Amino acid sequence: MLELVPETNPVPIEMADEAKNEVDVSAGLYGVEPINQSQTKTNRVWTRIDELSAAKHTGKTVLLRARVHNTRGTGKQAFLVLRQRFVTLQGVIFVGPAVSKQMVKFVASLSKESFVDVEGTIVGVPTPIESCTLHDIELHVTKIFTVSSAMPRLPFSLDDATNVEPLEGVETTNSNSEPEDNLIRVGLDTRLDNRVIDLRTTTNQAIYRLQSAVCLLFREFLTSQNFIEIHSPKIIGTASESGANVFAVTYFKQQAYLAQSPQFYKQMAMCADFERVFEIAPVFRAEDSNTHRHLTEFVGLDLEMAFYEHYHEVLDMLDKLFVFIFKGLRDRYANEIKAVQRQFPVPEFKFLEPSLRITFKEGVAMLREAGIEMDDYDDLSTANEKLLGKLIKAKYDTDFYMLDKFPTAVRPFYTMPDPSDPNYSNSYDLFMRGEEILSGAQRVHDPVLLEERAKEKHIEISSIQPYVDAFKYGAPPHGGGGIGLERVLMLYLGLGNIRRTSMFPRDPKRVAP
Amino acid sequence: MLELVPETNPVPIEMADEAKNEVDVSAGLYGVEPINQSQTKTNRVWTRIDELSAAKHTGKTVLLRARVHNTRGTGKQAFLVLRQRFVTLQGVIFVGPAVSKQMVKFVASLSKESFVDVEGTIVGVPTPIESCTLHDIELHVTKIFTVSSAMPRLPFSLDDATNVEPLEGVETTNSNSEPEDNLIRVGLDTRLDNRVIDLRTTTNQAIYRLQSAVCLLFREFLTSQNFIEIHSPKIIGTASESGANVFAVTYFKQQAYLAQSPQFYKQMAMCADFERVFEIAPVFRAEDSNTHRHLTEFVGLDLEMAFYEHYHEVLDMLDKLFVFIFKGLRDRYANEIKAVQRQFPVPEFKFLEPSLRITFKEGVAMLREAGIEMDDYDDLSTANEKLLGKLIKAKYDTDFYMLDKFPTAVRPFYTMPDPSDPNYSNSYDLFMRGEEILSGAQRVHDPVLLEERAKEKHIEISSIQPYVDAFKYGAPPHGGGGIGLERVLMLYLGLGNIRRTSMFPRDPKRVAP
Repeated sequence: MLELVPETNPVPIEMADEAKNEVDVSAGLYGVEPINQSQTKTNRVWTRIDELSAAKHTGKTVLLRARVHNTRGTGKQAFLVLRQRFVTLQGVIFVGPAVSKQMVKFVASLSKESFVDVEGTIVGVPTPIESCTLHDIELHVTKIFTVSSAMPRLPFSLDDATNVEPLEGVETTNSNSEPEDNLIRVGLDTRLDNRVIDLRTTTNQAIYRLQSAVCLLFREFLTSQNFIEIHSPKIIGTASESGANVFAVTYFKQQAYLAQSPQFYKQMAMCADFERVFEIAPVFRAEDSNTHRHLTEFVGLDLEMAFYEHYHEVLDMLDKLFVFIFKGLRDRYANEIKAVQRQFPVPEFKFLEPSLRITFKEGVAMLREAGIEMDDYDDLSTANEKLLGKLIKAKYDTDFYMLDKFPTAVRPFYTMPDPSDPNYSNSYDLFMRGEEILSGAQRVHDPVLLEERAKEKHIEISSIQPYVDAFKYGAPPHGGGGIGLERVLMLYLGLGNIRRTSMFPRDPKRVAP
Repeated sequence: MLELVPETNPVPIEMADEAKNEVDVSAGLYGVEPINQSQTKTNRVWTRIDELSAAKHTGKTVLLRARVHNTRGTGKQAFLVLRQRFVTLQGVIFVGPAVSKQMVKFVASLSKESFVDVEGTIVGVPTPIESCTLHDIELHVTKIFTVSSAMPRLPFSLDDATNVEPLEGVETTNSNSEPEDNLIRVGLDTRLDNRVIDLRTTTNQAIYRLQSAVCLLFREFLTSQNFIEIHSPKIIGTASESGANVFAVTYFKQQAYLAQSPQFYKQMAMCADFERVFEIAPVFRAEDSNTHRHLTEFVGLDLEMAFYEHYHEVLDMLDKLFVFIFKGLRDRYANEIKAVQRQFPVPEFKFLEPSLRITFKEGVAMLREAGIEMDDYDDLSTANEKLLGKLIKAKYDTDFYMLDKFPTAVRPFYTMPDPSDPNYSNSYDLFMRGEEILSGAQRVHDPVLLEERAKEKHIEISSIQPYVDAFKYGAPPHGGGGIGLERVLMLYLGLGNIRRTSMFPRDPKRVAP
């Protein structure tokens, strides 16, 4: 809602140095505010740029706080682009009866990325302003004060940082990924070293709104299905699930470890009658993998549920969950998706409803038909995963599918074997654009079978004793899965590198900022 | 929805050993099922106990999966209590034309906590069954199969584990906390060592539903206020915020640390234009504190927001947030609260709308009036916090209040000083039943002032360089706070020990299970 702003400015302000030395008709209308220490409450009404429209605001006075995206001065006039999150508005100021040269100079010399409080009148423009998201109006500035000054030289330009990127990775394995235009591009390491600046791009503003949205949709769906949220410990006493790839923590006088997943705990929650649980929490992997899709710390969206008869009850739940998320993104976050596509013009993500579900065996058959040689019980290599994704996209026109019944040999000990063929198991992976984003299974809920399976995989029972014991006092058949948040978002948007969907990514070489 | 179950049982079952050796009229109607490996899909319809009612189900056949809470047999008949989460239903079986002695014996000998699939007819009862949550109906069992057997001896009885607790801590500092009844009580360590059993009590089923609810309400309110969810890294390169109390992690060939809070990252999100953010994530404190209210790992509900003029915009937001959470719990989760109160009969949590807000100075004056001697700028001791809570409860009848304007000396370097009296700061704590549950403030958003304040507190600037640098390219005035989830729940319910509101708690002496 917009209301007229009182003419008097009740905020005490300091004059810019220059303005102090000569008569200035604009004295008191511009300058640098003292550091905000909550000196006053004025009840002034603030407007947001995305609320403004020609129809409602032409001729009205508005007050807003925005970043200075850009300025240019030509002596008697100055232009500036004001930015809030996604949106930009042109501001203009001309020397005139109430506007001094000094004031125009002050505006022209504002450093990019400074915060300003601006008051002015909204005016319609005859020629569309292409450089701003608001094309048909501009702000005629009457007052302007710096709230927070930016250093004059930015590590890189935000405009350069939003230049369209060559399609690398996902969609362009066969094309030349060198851009042939003359646009400046900001490298990923430069961005991550200056992440606070990089995150201000419209692309990143959109990406992290979408990340928030994936979590929101995940919870919204699961809550509607009577799941509750749990919080399992990240510091664990024994390097239980697998000794390798685990970070050690100095825990007072003993050694502890960082949890590689909430696997054991969400299963214990099943043994404790919570029936349907989810968790959104960091997951730690001490893997020295320097690839486009590995992080040492990522956000796991985990779920686990008891079922009555068949683990396909879990797979059906996952199917509905993902369709809900994909539809939710498409329908509720179209603007954010478009904003990302301006920099990463990747084809829209396609999915079916219900989702495509094929068996591992069928997947292997498709790969063999395409000339790949592999054994029945081999795991899929990354290259074969990608290829299978392409074959499936070509055949079914979907970027999302479920691969069911993996070989027992390639799954963890707690995976339930298939009842008729012990070489296969009741387990599944889910894929987006040919990369795995969820791994899951029916779990072994019988303590005797669980010990047997652990021994077969050469796991010391004593190291997992509390976990095995949890099943000794009655446990329901159950299954679930774990989703990598950053992967889902990277693949949905086709961004080609997981560091683009982690706000402050961690890999073997990066623990800062 | 309930539907009649087909008479034929399409699940292949194994007979109990005994039944194999003599003619058994009930053969095929009871026994031990093979381990569920998802052998079949029968499309049978399952009912939940909490859906059952005398009006709708009397005379109907139902199929359900439940735990055996209890059994007792008297030769020709057996009774069992069937349990799902919160609710229990009595089952009965009599020797008769279709029910053999062996079948009755099988039922009577089921071990407590086993999972069974039971089919039977719902029958109304003339005398209320006091021992079950469903008083007016019982299930006449016609088929019963064990899905998962529990070991015969439980570490403790679930009935003992829900016996009413003497009010310790919060409400009874002046009363004798030794119970004078003869009820068996299960100690906290025994519970935590066997947490999977302990979590099955109706009290714990309710507590962890309420924990999930607090997070849901927190997010629901903040999402409605245009906050987005972020995920900040828990592995950090430098022990930045304070060198002490931080867990060290071996990070490949270097040393890293576990984040003590998302403080720096949520502020960097402010510098990156996200404007309003929240995070729900684990927080790690290497404090060797063995008290009722300290954990080494807890769940932080953090938020941070830019404001226009005065940090009271943040405090107003927090006020509305907590009132929303308290009302939401009271209005949407009355059953869960009642379930907890059966074991912990603590007076209802009281709050005002808007919340009570007093200054630190006023708090000190109240304490002095009550005979406490303290200096103006001393921090509140735990005892004084408690006492102030009592004085405020007596004067204002509220268990929740906000204490504003703490002395600068007792707050971190990044806290904004008061504009007129530098001995005080724009900072606040929030209290429930006299214990702190949130600490927050306006933050210093000016890099020059930030360095000054850090130096005054003897912090090496180089150790916080990326954080300080984040403010050099324009930063909005902002503030926020961090809430301890387990504390909020412990104090809301008056449970007296934070280990009761952490599913798998971590303290200096406990890292398992």
